[in-house]
Amino acid sequence: MTTEEKVKQYREWVKKCSAYEMALTIIEIDKMTVAPPAGSAYRDERTAILAGELFALQTDPKIVELIRELRDARLDEDTAKMIELENKELDKIINMPQDFFVAFRQLRSNSYTAWLEAKKAKDYRIFEPYLKQLIEYSRKSYEYRQDTRPVYDQMLDDYEPGMTMQDYDVFFAQVKERLVPLIREVTRAKQVRTDFLNREYPVSLQKEFMEEVLSYLRFDPSWGYQNETEHPFTSGTSRNDCRTTTKYLPDNVASAVLSTVHEVGHATYGHDVDEKYDGTIIAHAISSGMHESQSRLFENYLGRTEAFWSVLYPKLQAIFPEQLQGITAKEFTDAVNASSPSLIRTEADELTYPMHIVIRYELEKGLFTGTIGTDGLDQTWNRLYKEYLGVDVPDDSRGILQDVHWSDASFGYFPTYALGSAIAAQVMHTMRQSLDVDECLRTNRFDQIVDWLRENIHHWGGRYQANEILKMVTGEPFNVKYYLDYLEEKYRTLYGIE
Amino acid sequence: MTTEEKVKQYREWVKKCSAYEMALTIIEIDKMTVAPPAGSAYRDERTAILAGELFALQTDPKIVELIRELRDARLDEDTAKMIELENKELDKIINMPQDFFVAFRQLRSNSYTAWLEAKKAKDYRIFEPYLKQLIEYSRKSYEYRQDTRPVYDQMLDDYEPGMTMQDYDVFFAQVKERLVPLIREVTRAKQVRTDFLNREYPVSLQKEFMEEVLSYLRFDPSWGYQNETEHPFTSGTSRNDCRTTTKYLPDNVASAVLSTVHEVGHATYGHDVDEKYDGTIIAHAISSGMHESQSRLFENYLGRTEAFWSVLYPKLQAIFPEQLQGITAKEFTDAVNASSPSLIRTEADELTYPMHIVIRYELEKGLFTGTIGTDGLDQTWNRLYKEYLGVDVPDDSRGILQDVHWSDASFGYFPTYALGSAIAAQVMHTMRQSLDVDECLRTNRFDQIVDWLRENIHHWGGRYQANEILKMVTGEPFNVKYYLDYLEEKYRTLYGIE
Repeated sequence: MTTEEKVKQYREWVKKCSAYEMALTIIEIDKMTVAPPAGSAYRDERTAILAGELFALQTDPKIVELIRELRDARLDEDTAKMIELENKELDKIINMPQDFFVAFRQLRSNSYTAWLEAKKAKDYRIFEPYLKQLIEYSRKSYEYRQDTRPVYDQMLDDYEPGMTMQDYDVFFAQVKERLVPLIREVTRAKQVRTDFLNREYPVSLQKEFMEEVLSYLRFDPSWGYQNETEHPFTSGTSRNDCRTTTKYLPDNVASAVLSTVHEVGHATYGHDVDEKYDGTIIAHAISSGMHESQSRLFENYLGRTEAFWSVLYPKLQAIFPEQLQGITAKEFTDAVNASSPSLIRTEADELTYPMHIVIRYELEKGLFTGTIGTDGLDQTWNRLYKEYLGVDVPDDSRGILQDVHWSDASFGYFPTYALGSAIAAQVMHTMRQSLDVDECLRTNRFDQIVDWLRENIHHWGGRYQANEILKMVTGEPFNVKYYLDYLEEKYRTLYGIE
Repeated sequence: MTTEEKVKQYREWVKKCSAYEMALTIIEIDKMTVAPPAGSAYRDERTAILAGELFALQTDPKIVELIRELRDARLDEDTAKMIELENKELDKIINMPQDFFVAFRQLRSNSYTAWLEAKKAKDYRIFEPYLKQLIEYSRKSYEYRQDTRPVYDQMLDDYEPGMTMQDYDVFFAQVKERLVPLIREVTRAKQVRTDFLNREYPVSLQKEFMEEVLSYLRFDPSWGYQNETEHPFTSGTSRNDCRTTTKYLPDNVASAVLSTVHEVGHATYGHDVDEKYDGTIIAHAISSGMHESQSRLFENYLGRTEAFWSVLYPKLQAIFPEQLQGITAKEFTDAVNASSPSLIRTEADELTYPMHIVIRYELEKGLFTGTIGTDGLDQTWNRLYKEYLGVDVPDDSRGILQDVHWSDASFGYFPTYALGSAIAAQVMHTMRQSLDVDECLRTNRFDQIVDWLRENIHHWGGRYQANEILKMVTGEPFNVKYYLDYLEEKYRTLYGIE
């Protein structure tokens, strides 16, 4: 077979895989949004059959051989990148025994159930034996890869290619050094008024306002659809089919809007990836940190600014004239930026959020480098919350059991959440040099911001690693300084701290 | 291989097929309800790949041989019925050349586009060459079956096993004989007041009322979900996952409710099929006429009665106090039963509806027995509308081009719509002898009606043909008398005709 024929065969295989991936994605979206719960056993059993068919397709020895062979062939740059990424994915699964794969999957399923139970009972001891096993199995799963790097480095690399413990150690040390004292100062300063955010805001009227927000953000119904779920997420089948969800709270006017702005950041990234990568591994290979950088950029660096609300706040006030009577756009914007150390990561404000991640990173690192065990991990958790955020954890449900991630063995994922915010700061710094962002926001020209992001970042998809893109766009590799300067300046101003 | 092993292998194949069928169903529901339109090319291409995978699975020579062999094996009655139905399905596709299959599929796709265009241009001549080809291809597709019956008999049998032209000729002759004069009398009688149905009814409030309707009908969110689409339909993946859609009109208070009652009739049937048939061909093999009998029974024989509205009308009036001021439940019920000959089948009332079907049946029969050609078919259409309904067809869009069915080569389907209404009448007649239906409706005990239908009809799924079930339930084969007596009595009373 000539290289050309091999590439053709590879492309056909990609398309066939993408058909199964599309089916699984739509089934998952359906399940999360509207599928009747009593039908889940029937659906789940059949979904597993389809997932098995896809796995068989992905590990078909003939295609594995082809992909291995293409590694050494002369290919155009895009195809070469695809083959590089495919080989990396194959390395992850190819030596894993089927038995182990099934047992690990079963363990994760059982652990999720145990986690739900433990969280309900507010008792870490119920979950602890599962966590111990999850760590063992995770460790084992990396042994099959025949990679000599420390296991936690490999985990970090899975979510953010190129990042290591050494990199994150430097990053989080700087975060702690600057933010722990700043958070203390903010806590002691005169507080920002937020009471009006939590008046009664009927959901049907919030939905009316959401139409304005989606239109402002250029979330176009021809390629995007928003639904409602308990936990908002973004998914989709192609660049022209991006789905987001949001959650409305009747006693919080800002929650659904900001979560929507966040998810539309993800969706816009997905939509903007170059058409030629649609359905290929390059479209899927955007790192967690890069993806999160765009959702955070939308939510925090745009969605929480006065310029953003200068267009939307008058419309919001017109829909809720009583609830927002006498509240200026400035007061409203200040309120959605207010900071206060709290217990729950997903509800944390922009300033304290990274500290929640620091804690999780330090625990994960300790667990996989062997300096920390699962026994008494809840106590360590609580101690760190007191030390970094100054809060007392009242029970495990609002402590170590709050996140679902560990029950699914998603170790190494959390750090990308903080990384995303920091990457966004660096990108924003560059964007502001060539684009009057506030002017775009004030004149309802959000499309110009999207254009800039698409041309500089989004269209690449996963063609380059985060650090490569950052260097191309900002002229330097990842630099935490922009993030910490931004937070410092923003919160010193907001709280009138010298 | 022992018979037992063969059956086990057959069952495994059924489950695997059902996984693909589930995926295709969910993808279709997603497409019809929420999927962003710009993503359809990507999705459709991959959906075709999955459909191809399913087709390959269904025509796998090894499984075909197995199913053929099991035809002669000693099997329990349920399995024997499944194998009988599987063999019948295989006969339909097994001799069809792949090329022809693909070409026919392409023709239907092109014909749909041409139909849309023709309908928009109100010009049958645009669609006529496609219709001609659709008839040729349909005829050809039946030739591959090596079945000696007339082709239109085979078509009728596909939608309603056991029914022939001879049966329908008798049926429709009686329908015409009794209804054509009755419709003339109703048209000449003093008309029923309906103006209040078409006042302004905000959709958000209609949705509020719909919650009451769905709860009254025992459409349980644990196994059922209702969405909105331009053309309401019912679908689902299993007995515990039944989806319906409806369409709200802001200037019609009855439309969405009655279409919902209709679709919930279909969904209830799907939900009530015995668990042991879930995912098997027996659950899928319910004939069009039997299925339609239950949706019509819900919509017309229950949903248009005074007893039904005795519970729901006060709630409707409470939600729309101005629009329905001074209108009694009796006046409201009379209005939703009003009859007036019209042009469009899908908007026709209960009395004139079957005449729309008679016309389509006579044309289809003529087309396939060779007494009618496609040339000038629009003129024949218009002549029959004048003769049977007394209306003048102003253009092809409101005439021969109104229905999508022929563009998809769904010949033989229309007659089951009328048959369903007639079957429902016979079932109702029997049900009323053992159950006080009106009392159930008046006391909010719709569940008792559902119980009766499940125990007598629904639980069987497609285990028996319509005529077999009718004989078991009513003690006699299909008898059109119940239907015509019902319509005659109902409309003579409503319009005060002697």
